[in-house]
Amino acid sequence: MTISREVRLVARPEGRPTPDLVEVVETEVECGDDAVVVENLAMSVEPYMQGRMSEHVDYATPYALGQPLTGHAVGRVVASSVADLPEGTVVLHEKGWRELSRLRPDEVQAQVPDGTDPLALLGALGQTGFTAWVGLTLVAGLQGGETVFITSAAGAVGAVAGQIAKAQGCTVIGSCGGPEKGEVLRGLGFDAVIDHRAGPVRASLKEALAAVGRSHLDVTFDNVGGEQLEAAIRHMGDHGRIALCGAISTYDATSPVPGPRNLLLAIWRRLRLEGFIVGDHQAHRPRFDERMTRWLADGTVVDPRTEVADGIEHAFDGFLRMLDGASTGKSYVRLAD
Amino acid sequence: MTISREVRLVARPEGRPTPDLVEVVETEVECGDDAVVVENLAMSVEPYMQGRMSEHVDYATPYALGQPLTGHAVGRVVASSVADLPEGTVVLHEKGWRELSRLRPDEVQAQVPDGTDPLALLGALGQTGFTAWVGLTLVAGLQGGETVFITSAAGAVGAVAGQIAKAQGCTVIGSCGGPEKGEVLRGLGFDAVIDHRAGPVRASLKEALAAVGRSHLDVTFDNVGGEQLEAAIRHMGDHGRIALCGAISTYDATSPVPGPRNLLLAIWRRLRLEGFIVGDHQAHRPRFDERMTRWLADGTVVDPRTEVADGIEHAFDGFLRMLDGASTGKSYVRLAD
Repeated sequence: MTISREVRLVARPEGRPTPDLVEVVETEVECGDDAVVVENLAMSVEPYMQGRMSEHVDYATPYALGQPLTGHAVGRVVASSVADLPEGTVVLHEKGWRELSRLRPDEVQAQVPDGTDPLALLGALGQTGFTAWVGLTLVAGLQGGETVFITSAAGAVGAVAGQIAKAQGCTVIGSCGGPEKGEVLRGLGFDAVIDHRAGPVRASLKEALAAVGRSHLDVTFDNVGGEQLEAAIRHMGDHGRIALCGAISTYDATSPVPGPRNLLLAIWRRLRLEGFIVGDHQAHRPRFDERMTRWLADGTVVDPRTEVADGIEHAFDGFLRMLDGASTGKSYVRLAD
Repeated sequence: MTISREVRLVARPEGRPTPDLVEVVETEVECGDDAVVVENLAMSVEPYMQGRMSEHVDYATPYALGQPLTGHAVGRVVASSVADLPEGTVVLHEKGWRELSRLRPDEVQAQVPDGTDPLALLGALGQTGFTAWVGLTLVAGLQGGETVFITSAAGAVGAVAGQIAKAQGCTVIGSCGGPEKGEVLRGLGFDAVIDHRAGPVRASLKEALAAVGRSHLDVTFDNVGGEQLEAAIRHMGDHGRIALCGAISTYDATSPVPGPRNLLLAIWRRLRLEGFIVGDHQAHRPRFDERMTRWLADGTVVDPRTEVADGIEHAFDGFLRMLDGASTGKSYVRLAD
């Protein structure tokens, strides 16, 4: 099989991405020397991809116009000229957004051990779960027994972050959109859930703190920015730490979005706000892998996921659905069985 | 002498403080047992005092209505029933805003050694200089050779902070209001100065960086908030640190002031913003005292100061002048010779 389809960026977004930014194109894939061809089983769609579609992205290389998008995918080697990667090997790599990916050995990020669910490497056991762990553990310095607020808690990172915090004996409050997601989060062990669509977040967060019998937050893991970050700052206790992971609320903005109006509290309460990019922390990956493998095996963490599309021709629609917040946990596109 | 005058708070401010918030009242001071009476030579006026006049201050106890204000002062013991504090001892304490202060021994914060300028304990060698040092050293983790931006650099804390950074071999840019203050700052060794009244701070800061041959800031020491903090965030490099010390630009506001609109950069550039209160860091005071005493002695740091008023009846006017930004360096009120 040498014909593959791939999703190419043909225009850059202004504000919310739209279906016409990409086209699905047929292309020929040859294995050649020192490479493998991988048939992708599933690929990840993530909020950060929106940023990379823009020309002015700051934390990563922009996607090139006319070229296929990239992102994490898992697949099975179907042709190989590399001895260590025989046909049948299941691998994780970053050349998603296509049916067949031609990879050099150094582009294979991991081989999936027998018995490991390949999809877990897109979720709890992958960059997604690692982001949650890095933010809570390395950036925010979470301690057992603390009170934690996680914004966009039903998102891929948030749903794992909440479970990691629970595994450390913390009290966990999460925000999400809509009561159905709230039920899912309670099922994952969250102590309290806020529906950010149901009213002012600041008041909801106050109620949630009262419901769990706490006076303040020690740590916030923020994926949203805007009103939710401002509400978090309002309810942080002295020496609280805020890990800034994302700012979904601002990604569509075509003009600057006002920041939190209460940063003065950061002085009075000695708060630390710290942004991070997970790629900086790869040295800690083995420690995370060991821990998360154990947590998944013993059920401490479950890997929540939603299939947002089936087939490469629907992949971008799946990405847009993920941005609309339609899914809970890790959003992935199925590409083959 | 047992008659003293003191400045009492009789109303709480809404927005900018006004002269009618206080009254100057005569009162009798008796030494009694286990106490000293101190004739104050000079007292400090500082921006944080505005916050404490409000009922809703968060980081300190509000000043009580009907009671004298407090703040740092230096004075000479004129009556004593404490063996360790004989008449003539010069002391630092926190019961300023009055001509005579009755103090218990535990209210005496320091005895001023012979040969030390008592006013230095209100400035570079006091809480003011300690605040500058804590913010740069303990909070921002300043390293030699880095590029530093100091907002309100002509203020008491800023003017010392800039010199401390220079002493560590850093390149230092400061912001202030007006060209006269800029000249003072250049005289203190600042490499570049921005007049925040002269145009958009973001553009001025870009020019200043170009003028000193640097592409970005490593550390910002922020006393101002608002536009200046936003401009600083814009020009921070990867892993930059921002010590949040004050937010003069917001103190007068009667409604919430928009925060920096570019906090997303804090993620992309892995920035850390951290608020601090100097009182948390007293354990490091001996190390600071040793260093600053040496820097003052060898001229590495000069203690910039302005007498903003002479006499307790003019003290509050001096406080208001300091808020108006009329002075450079430490603002103090002379109370006696």
